[in-house]
Amino acid sequence: MIYPKVVEELMNALCKLPGIGPKTAQRLAFYILRSSKEEARKLADSIIKTKETVFYCKDCFNLSENELCPICEDTTRDKQTICVVEDPRDILAIDKTGSFRGLYHVLLGAINPLEGIGPEDLKIKELLLRLNSNKINEVIIATDSDPEGEATALYLLNILKPLGVKVTRIAHGIPVGSSLEYADRATLSRALEGRHEI
Amino acid sequence: MIYPKVVEELMNALCKLPGIGPKTAQRLAFYILRSSKEEARKLADSIIKTKETVFYCKDCFNLSENELCPICEDTTRDKQTICVVEDPRDILAIDKTGSFRGLYHVLLGAINPLEGIGPEDLKIKELLLRLNSNKINEVIIATDSDPEGEATALYLLNILKPLGVKVTRIAHGIPVGSSLEYADRATLSRALEGRHEI
Repeated sequence: MIYPKVVEELMNALCKLPGIGPKTAQRLAFYILRSSKEEARKLADSIIKTKETVFYCKDCFNLSENELCPICEDTTRDKQTICVVEDPRDILAIDKTGSFRGLYHVLLGAINPLEGIGPEDLKIKELLLRLNSNKINEVIIATDSDPEGEATALYLLNILKPLGVKVTRIAHGIPVGSSLEYADRATLSRALEGRHEI
Repeated sequence: MIYPKVVEELMNALCKLPGIGPKTAQRLAFYILRSSKEEARKLADSIIKTKETVFYCKDCFNLSENELCPICEDTTRDKQTICVVEDPRDILAIDKTGSFRGLYHVLLGAINPLEGIGPEDLKIKELLLRLNSNKINEVIIATDSDPEGEATALYLLNILKPLGVKVTRIAHGIPVGSSLEYADRATLSRALEGRHEI
């Protein structure tokens, strides 16, 4: 053994993070070794503090430090439209556009049979509860456009449609600013299907 | 603001690590949010413990939990040969080969005028002290073969040569197992210069 045991332990702990292999873990561990005590303590404290003070919003499952997240607490937002996303990060992406002023509902995942994630593992029951207890006009399904996201969207459509609520799916097509010749077949096909008169 | 403040703080702290940009920091922060409390605490504890219990060996500046590192304490090693490297990680790489059983000396960097790192910022004074107080037969310079490492090697040669100690540099040439046609000009040129009769 050449490295002190605690350094090996730190590398092992870093290695568990997604996208961090042994080489990167080593580089990070050595950066932490060289950094100031305050900087290292700040990182460690942030990790602990995040785990201790951040929870999921009880209504929409966005990240929150309180029972309700800032979006659910915001009285200026349209409470009759719910946008369903897979992950709290998607909320940030959508909210940045400024095109949506309704509420969100985070499923915390997508249906993925290969990884054993079924509808019962997602926050779908909680979405139905919200629909029952509030007057909702429209549910926008904004799950990813990968197979898991599409399967989840289809599942949601099948259980929401009978409830009489308007269900929409965000549009898929050519990304703005990109060249048509680089678009893949599936995207181009969806863009043609979704064409509208101008 | 969409994310809770502590999550933003965690992302900022992670962003300071080398090779971690905002997107990766976000991914890591969300992984930590999803991970178990024990796993997060283990990572945070490792960071703190590493900073509190790991120091540099007082002789060779390898990482160590004690005053002297395991290599300097190992009585079976050849104490008359010192291999000079830039970084404690280099010790692991060299020691793994099993081709060297002497001691090491870590400079903790290389001469880099662009970043304001001069010879006085490296552990060169300490190397000279070791040469003065011990009987050293040979100093092997194993700094990197990039411009900074080469400049450091040249600087060391100039100050060690007058002391009468044998100074050697590790060989540069074609990596074992690689094809000649892919070798760059500088490597090939060094390989030709370093040719030996067989």
